[in-house]
Amino acid sequence: MRNIKLTIEYDGTNYVGWQCQPNGVSVQQVMEEALAKILKEPVRINSSGRTDSGVHARGMVASFRTEKLIPLKAFSVGLNSVLPPDIAVREAAEMPLDFHPRIDALEKLYRYSILNSPLRSPLNRSMSWQVRGKLDLDAMRKAASHFVGEKDFAAFRAARCSAKTSIRRIDSLEIYSKNDFIIFDVRGNGFLRHMVRIIVGTLVEVGRGAMTPDEMPVLFEDCSRDKSGVTAPPQGLCLIEVFY
Amino acid sequence: MRNIKLTIEYDGTNYVGWQCQPNGVSVQQVMEEALAKILKEPVRINSSGRTDSGVHARGMVASFRTEKLIPLKAFSVGLNSVLPPDIAVREAAEMPLDFHPRIDALEKLYRYSILNSPLRSPLNRSMSWQVRGKLDLDAMRKAASHFVGEKDFAAFRAARCSAKTSIRRIDSLEIYSKNDFIIFDVRGNGFLRHMVRIIVGTLVEVGRGAMTPDEMPVLFEDCSRDKSGVTAPPQGLCLIEVFY
Repeated sequence: MRNIKLTIEYDGTNYVGWQCQPNGVSVQQVMEEALAKILKEPVRINSSGRTDSGVHARGMVASFRTEKLIPLKAFSVGLNSVLPPDIAVREAAEMPLDFHPRIDALEKLYRYSILNSPLRSPLNRSMSWQVRGKLDLDAMRKAASHFVGEKDFAAFRAARCSAKTSIRRIDSLEIYSKNDFIIFDVRGNGFLRHMVRIIVGTLVEVGRGAMTPDEMPVLFEDCSRDKSGVTAPPQGLCLIEVFY
Repeated sequence: MRNIKLTIEYDGTNYVGWQCQPNGVSVQQVMEEALAKILKEPVRINSSGRTDSGVHARGMVASFRTEKLIPLKAFSVGLNSVLPPDIAVREAAEMPLDFHPRIDALEKLYRYSILNSPLRSPLNRSMSWQVRGKLDLDAMRKAASHFVGEKDFAAFRAARCSAKTSIRRIDSLEIYSKNDFIIFDVRGNGFLRHMVRIIVGTLVEVGRGAMTPDEMPVLFEDCSRDKSGVTAPPQGLCLIEVFY
């Protein structure tokens, strides 16, 4: 038996998210169908986790088992010739049989991109959230420091989030500007549903002056989704890398 | 009478190019229709030049005349609310009545992006040309030096190109790599139809070793489209800026 690890890039615009859903086409479903064509057998793949509808990935990690003795290249170049233009394998690797992309993941890096400009950018529209008013970067960085560490992120999860515990650890949350863009790099051991997007939405409230950095600890104490910021839209978010 | 200059960004994927065509929707047509909605009168716009079907622009320049006393903001923020997501105005400015975006243009900067990788990139697919084999950057740069200066670019124009003379001046042609990408920045006083794309296609032949830098002068002497390289596909090309 072989255990194959795939690193997958996708443009999430036209998908209901990574995981199979009854209401539309998921990236997982397309991957499983493409793999079945190559392997000529049904395949079930595991992943490092879900991404929401419309969220992108540069380095989603998935794995599957097979007994077929097909060269590894069939799972990168070969699979890419079967996959649609908005999904591709960036790397395929043989792993020990006990490797599991979710259980073995140590850290994930998510990136959120804001276009901070009064004017739209057609060339960046599918990969960023346009925020019109000027944002105070210093205040946002001050607020961001409150998110780093092992904390209860109950105030920063979607109402429908089904995780048993809302304790997660964020290892770093860096904010930097590049031309008209403000980029958030969030690294942590795991993320609740909508967690990065609600954190970004909250930091934008701080950047606008509608909240202060000092209010962040109160959000963590109250554990209420009602007091944190809006959920930033999905197209600004990208799963960059999963670390093992 | 007012003469308004617009700097326009667009994703050219779904258009037949800048200029109005009988066979599909052009960016110019969409711009004129949007302006007519704002101005409540028919508008004819001039531009700094055409772009081919599928080519993008970050800084296309156009102008139009009107006697309507509408605030300038109506032609940026206002116009953007009427334009589709893949076209937007980045700047609107009042100009002297004798300003013409094509006649007064001194230089244009085009950028061509190659993804030099055996594997596709879904997130970059609409803005780059994937070239699989390794390319020799040094050889390409040596070949590129032959394109700089005032020359007869007859070997680097589309068969259907209708320009009266094929003499043009390229002021710089820089090639640099960035992660898996090879970027070509071409600055010149004017460009023939497909000129940048044929130059890039020819330089890729050099990068592959199918041609040598020393063969470039021969191409200029022969003036024959048959000996230069393929026309690189449109989605890798972007009109970055027009200089006045």
